Amino acid sequence: MNYNELTNERKQELLKQELARYEEFKAMDLKLDMSRGKPSKEQLDLSMGIFDVLNSSSSLKGKQDYRNYGINDGIPEIKAIFTELLGITDDEIIVSGNASLVLMYDTIQRAMQFGVLGGEPWNKQGKIKWLCPVPGYDRHFAVTELFGIEMINVPMKDDGPDMDMIEELVKDPSVKGIWCVPKYSNPMGIIYSDEVVRRFAALKPAAKDFRIMWDNAYMVHALYGQDKMLDIFAEAKKYGNEDIVYMFGSTSKISFAGAGIAFIAGSKRNMDSLRKLINIQSIGPDKVSQYAHALFFKNADGIYAQMEKHAEILRPKFDAVLEILDEELGDTGIAKWNKPRGGYFISCFLKKGTAKRTVQLAKEAGVVFTGAGATYPYKNDPDDSNLRIAPTLPPIDELRTAMKIFCCAAKIAALEK
Amino acid sequence: MNYNELTNERKQELLKQELARYEEFKAMDLKLDMSRGKPSKEQLDLSMGIFDVLNSSSSLKGKQDYRNYGINDGIPEIKAIFTELLGITDDEIIVSGNASLVLMYDTIQRAMQFGVLGGEPWNKQGKIKWLCPVPGYDRHFAVTELFGIEMINVPMKDDGPDMDMIEELVKDPSVKGIWCVPKYSNPMGIIYSDEVVRRFAALKPAAKDFRIMWDNAYMVHALYGQDKMLDIFAEAKKYGNEDIVYMFGSTSKISFAGAGIAFIAGSKRNMDSLRKLINIQSIGPDKVSQYAHALFFKNADGIYAQMEKHAEILRPKFDAVLEILDEELGDTGIAKWNKPRGGYFISCFLKKGTAKRTVQLAKEAGVVFTGAGATYPYKNDPDDSNLRIAPTLPPIDELRTAMKIFCCAAKIAALEK
Repeated sequence: MNYNELTNERKQELLKQELARYEEFKAMDLKLDMSRGKPSKEQLDLSMGIFDVLNSSSSLKGKQDYRNYGINDGIPEIKAIFTELLGITDDEIIVSGNASLVLMYDTIQRAMQFGVLGGEPWNKQGKIKWLCPVPGYDRHFAVTELFGIEMINVPMKDDGPDMDMIEELVKDPSVKGIWCVPKYSNPMGIIYSDEVVRRFAALKPAAKDFRIMWDNAYMVHALYGQDKMLDIFAEAKKYGNEDIVYMFGSTSKISFAGAGIAFIAGSKRNMDSLRKLINIQSIGPDKVSQYAHALFFKNADGIYAQMEKHAEILRPKFDAVLEILDEELGDTGIAKWNKPRGGYFISCFLKKGTAKRTVQLAKEAGVVFTGAGATYPYKNDPDDSNLRIAPTLPPIDELRTAMKIFCCAAKIAALEK
Repeated sequence: MNYNELTNERKQELLKQELARYEEFKAMDLKLDMSRGKPSKEQLDLSMGIFDVLNSSSSLKGKQDYRNYGINDGIPEIKAIFTELLGITDDEIIVSGNASLVLMYDTIQRAMQFGVLGGEPWNKQGKIKWLCPVPGYDRHFAVTELFGIEMINVPMKDDGPDMDMIEELVKDPSVKGIWCVPKYSNPMGIIYSDEVVRRFAALKPAAKDFRIMWDNAYMVHALYGQDKMLDIFAEAKKYGNEDIVYMFGSTSKISFAGAGIAFIAGSKRNMDSLRKLINIQSIGPDKVSQYAHALFFKNADGIYAQMEKHAEILRPKFDAVLEILDEELGDTGIAKWNKPRGGYFISCFLKKGTAKRTVQLAKEAGVVFTGAGATYPYKNDPDDSNLRIAPTLPPIDELRTAMKIFCCAAKIAALEK
C-alpha cells in the first residue's frame, strides 16, 4: 500500500505494527556493520594465489631486480595489464602503491602547491571551486573539503551527472575540477552514457587547469557481464582535449582491499609532469607487490576471469537486498532505489527528511549503515533522503536481517512524519 | 709522497704516469655504476624468506582481516617491532607504505599546506628557511628545494652538525627545520655524539613550528656491531620538547629496497595531527606487506640478526674501498675520507676544485660515481671537493677496479691543477 494515500488512523496502526517488529529486531541483540564498501572474506579468498606466485627461490629479476630501488612509474609487467585494460600506452600511466585514493589526494595536493602543467598553483588563485555529482563518494568530498575547495552539488541523472549544468558551471574560471565515478557510480551504480562521456571529453572549461577526476574504481566490477562504456580518453583525444582527464583505478576490489595496486593514467604531458614531482617524492613504488600481481593475473583476461568470480559471490547479495527492498518498500511510495549492474552499492532515496532518522533507528537496533548525508559534500544532504547500502561484506543471512531492519526503520521514520 | 710538496717537474712526471694508467683503465671498456646506495643482490637474497611466510592457505587475520581495508597507522604486529627498536609506544608511531622518503616529503607538504599543530601553513609565511648539514643526502635537499624553501648549509663536524651555528640560526623564526641523518650519516658515516643529540633535544627555536627531520635511515645498519646512540626522543621528553622531532626509518635496507616498510614516529600530539590528515588521504597502508615483514622478522632481535648478516656482506666491501684509498691516496695529501662504522657510504674530500673533474674522468673510463655537488643543497659544493662513494652494490672485484679508477682520476685532477 502507498503510504502517501493513507488516512492518519491507518498510519498510526501501521506505525504500531512496525514498532512492534522493531522491538523484536532489537531483542535479537545484533551487531552488524553495513557501513563500508568492503569486499567479503570469500572475495578476498579468491586472490590467495598471490601468495604462491613467489617463494624464496623465485627470481624477481625483470627489467631489473624488482627487490631493489628504481622504476618510479611501475614495472612493465603490471603496466602491461592496465594498459591492455585501458587501451593506452606505457607513457600514459603511472602505476603506484596500494591506493588510488592516495593518488587522487596527491594529484590535488600537487595542483594546489605546484599548479597544473605550468599554471599557477591553485593555492595562489584565491577561492577555487569543484563540481560534485550527488549523491557521490564521501572520501572524494572529504579530500576537496580538506583543501578548502568550495564544492558545488551537481545532480545525477539516470545516465550520469547533469551535463547542461556542468557545461554552464565550467564557464567560471574558478571551477577547477569534478569528481566522477563513471562506471557503476558510487553510490548509484549508474553507467555514464555515451553522450555524457562525449560531452565530458569535449568540455572546454574557462579554467585551462580544470581536470576531470575520472575515478574508474569499478571499471571491471560488473555483476551481470562486462558492460561496455565509451572511453573518455580516446574521445578526448579526438577533440585535442586529452589533458582534461586524470583516470584512476586499482585492484583494491580485484585482489586485496588496501593491498592492491593503484594507477593514475592520462595524457603523456600530464603524466610526465607528475613523474617529475613523483621522482622527488619517492624512490619508487613497491615493485614486489606489483610483480606478484602481474604474475598472478597475467593479463587483462586474468582480471576479467577474476571479476566473474567476484560477481558470482556478489550477485546473490545484491539480489537479496533488492528483493527485500521490493518486498518491504516496493509499493509504499516512500523509497526509490537503483538496480545496479555492477559496483559496490545500492543507493536508496527515502522519504524526504527521514534518512537520518532511519540510520539512527537501525543503529539502535544494532545495524550500522553509512551515515545519512555521507553521500553529499559537507555531509549535507539537503533532502535528508539518500542512503548508501553496501551489500558486499556481510554474509547473506546477516544481510537479509540488516535489510529488513533498514526497511522497518525507513517505514517507522516515514510514518512518524 | 705528498703532492703538495712536489716540484712542478715531478708533478708533470707523475701526471704522465697516471694518464698512462688511465688509458689502460679506459681500454678495459668498463661499465660500472657506483652512483647510488643500493643493496647488492646477496643482501636482497637475505630476505627471500619473506616470500615463504605466507601462502595461499595462510590466515591473515590479526586484529582484523589484513587483506581488507582499515587500520590506517600500521598493524600491531609491525608496530611491535618498530616500537621495540625505538623504545616508544604504539601511539607514537605511524607505520606506512614502502618508503620513508614519501613520509618525509608528505610531512613537509602537509606543513606547507596545513601548518604544524595548528600553526599557520608554511605556504603563507613568506620565505622560509631550512638547515642542511653538509655534506648530506641529495634526496633530502631535492625535497626542500622543490618547495622553494631556502636551504642554509651547516658544516658537519666529527660528532655531528655544528651545533653552535644551529643554535644561532634557529633564532630566526623563518627557519623551520633541519635535515638530520643522525647515525652513520649520509654520506659521512658520522654518529652524532651524545652532546649533539642533547643539544638538538633541548633546542628552542624561535619558530614554534620548527621540526627536526630525524632520518634514522641507518639506525641498525652497523658494520662492526651495534653502536649505541643517545635517544633524541627520550631526551626531548626530559625538556618537554618532544614535539620538536619527527623520526623516520624503514626496512628498505633491512629487507627490500623499495619494498620494505617505512614509519614516522614522534610525540602523540604530532602523530595524532598527522593521523587526522592521513585518514583523508588514504584508506590504509599495505597491511599484507606489513604482516609478511612482521612474520619474517618476528621482533627487534630478528632485525638485529638480519643486520649482522648484512654487515658480513658489506664489511669486505667497505674494507676494500678504504684499503685502496689508503694505498693510492694515503700519503698524497690530496684527499681525506671517513672510516664509517655503518651506513651506506664513504665520503671523500678531494683537493679543492677537483671533484667534478674526478667524476668526469671516472665516467669517461666507464665508472659512474654520484655527481660532484650532489651532497650539497642546490648541487653546489662551494669547494668542489666532496664525493660520495657507495660501496654496497657492486661485486667486490668491480668495486676494487672502480676505486682504482677513482683514485687515478683524483690524482690526475689534482696534478692538472
